[in-house]
Amino acid sequence: MGEFDLIARYFTRPATKAALGVGDDCALLQPTPGTQLAISCDMLVEGRHFFADVDPFALGHKALAVNLSDLAACGATPLAFTLALALPRADEAWLEAFSRGLLGLADAHGCELIGGDTTQGPLNICITVFGEVPVVDGKSQALLRSGARDGDDIYVSGTLGDARLALEALRGTLILPPALLAQTRQRLEQPTPRVALGQALRGVASAALDLSDGLLGDLQHILQASGVGATLDTAIASNLIAVHTHPALETGIIPSEKQLEYVLAGGDDYELAFTAPASAREAVRTASQQAGTPVTRIGRIEAERGLRLVDANGQPVPNTFSSFDHFA
Amino acid sequence: MGEFDLIARYFTRPATKAALGVGDDCALLQPTPGTQLAISCDMLVEGRHFFADVDPFALGHKALAVNLSDLAACGATPLAFTLALALPRADEAWLEAFSRGLLGLADAHGCELIGGDTTQGPLNICITVFGEVPVVDGKSQALLRSGARDGDDIYVSGTLGDARLALEALRGTLILPPALLAQTRQRLEQPTPRVALGQALRGVASAALDLSDGLLGDLQHILQASGVGATLDTAIASNLIAVHTHPALETGIIPSEKQLEYVLAGGDDYELAFTAPASAREAVRTASQQAGTPVTRIGRIEAERGLRLVDANGQPVPNTFSSFDHFA
Repeated sequence: MGEFDLIARYFTRPATKAALGVGDDCALLQPTPGTQLAISCDMLVEGRHFFADVDPFALGHKALAVNLSDLAACGATPLAFTLALALPRADEAWLEAFSRGLLGLADAHGCELIGGDTTQGPLNICITVFGEVPVVDGKSQALLRSGARDGDDIYVSGTLGDARLALEALRGTLILPPALLAQTRQRLEQPTPRVALGQALRGVASAALDLSDGLLGDLQHILQASGVGATLDTAIASNLIAVHTHPALETGIIPSEKQLEYVLAGGDDYELAFTAPASAREAVRTASQQAGTPVTRIGRIEAERGLRLVDANGQPVPNTFSSFDHFA
Repeated sequence: MGEFDLIARYFTRPATKAALGVGDDCALLQPTPGTQLAISCDMLVEGRHFFADVDPFALGHKALAVNLSDLAACGATPLAFTLALALPRADEAWLEAFSRGLLGLADAHGCELIGGDTTQGPLNICITVFGEVPVVDGKSQALLRSGARDGDDIYVSGTLGDARLALEALRGTLILPPALLAQTRQRLEQPTPRVALGQALRGVASAALDLSDGLLGDLQHILQASGVGATLDTAIASNLIAVHTHPALETGIIPSEKQLEYVLAGGDDYELAFTAPASAREAVRTASQQAGTPVTRIGRIEAERGLRLVDANGQPVPNTFSSFDHFA
């Protein structure tokens, strides 16, 4: 199968939102008047972001999910994406499953594949995604990292640390009961981008980002961009792991200090962390309900720089957790 | 050097055109009212699109040039781009030269780096580029592949086959005199995207694309999209190689049948091929002069499907040239 057959068979569908889709030198997109275009780009590499034997359906899903997660963090409505794909060889079964996972999630979010590139090379998936954000009275409604203010509450969506738990099990550093492995592996391999929550938080949250490298490291980006500090409650955070009520955690399969580490610095969560003034608690609750996504208040923005951890009694907890860095 | 230091040092500059540039979850772009956004995406892989020891400055240039060439083919005005980069390691000297080559060409075209991703992995460069195309009276001014009509002239810009000549020399299949190698290697490693010509051809050309895989193969895309055929004059085409007056061609260093093959199916030319009605010859000449880019009329669109080659006397020339396919 040649390059053009491959594109035609697995990645070409009629354009619906775009003025022109796959098949010319460029795709053409006409944004809705009065909106800004939100753009993000993520590259996934075999051996670093996924294992060589990962289910291609799940990989197709995840490759788009991590990009939609960036749109969610900005409060953008998904519109379209491009896909560049380096493949060691044109494996039809792999491509069929990959495109099914990819386009299934794309359809669920009305996000159209409008162009891209295919080439031979070590497996590499690069997606650039486009969304729309309204501009109201000349002011962009995009959620940025820079809007957190002293006294704001800090929230996270969903659960944290599950993906890391699965990763450790797949790496062989701990053994999970089969049902627990399946549950956490789903979180690792097919994360759910919080697109509806991001949109519902427009005009409510003061700052937001998505969690990919781990809460502590990612939250620093909000603190730095906003010029503030924060205190997080580790007692609340520790229970954010989806499996915190699972017997495995009570029987010592997962040491309790690891549980907190996975929540705070596990990585691959693709949840949203956001801040909002205390006066907006009811609005946050409403946004959470509208989106059908639970959120948990886990700390507070403070004027004093730095990120502090406290236990249930407000006593300091040493921060010995390190975030993921691709070149550290 | 960590991932965020790397981004900050080599790839972050203040946003000028974008509402928000590098450093948040998404970049924000506000297209000019009354325009369409043209979007293209190209991925470059070591060992396939460039040699491991290529000059990183030239590579930075080329990675953006091949994308700008797609915008040129649509007649779009460059606006911004995202860069995703997989690197085996964070090599500062390499990154410094790469970013200088990349951003130098970007600045020359007013094309702003607004976001991207960096990760560790086999060297892979994925750029998605954004340009603007006017919409006049509800009609997009973008040049498409589908507009060629029976009787239209076929043109190519600049020269063809030079990049392939350099590639063959670097592969060791022929030996070029040093000055000729330097000249053709410049064309291979630092192609010039025909951005000004593309814009000047809006409203003049009936169809256009950029030449990356070789004239014969790429021209088929126009023929298929437009539902037409074509005849090309190989006597004119053969002289399109930049070095056709070079003594090397007269002394048999480059066999004459190879010369024609490199022009017709060499690849990596990044020139424009376009069609225009015979009534637009003066307008094409004016566009060429405005852009400072020579163009050559090399054939004609015909209703009869297929691509025919003829010699100076109009006699058929067998088409034994094959185009490049990443998975053939």
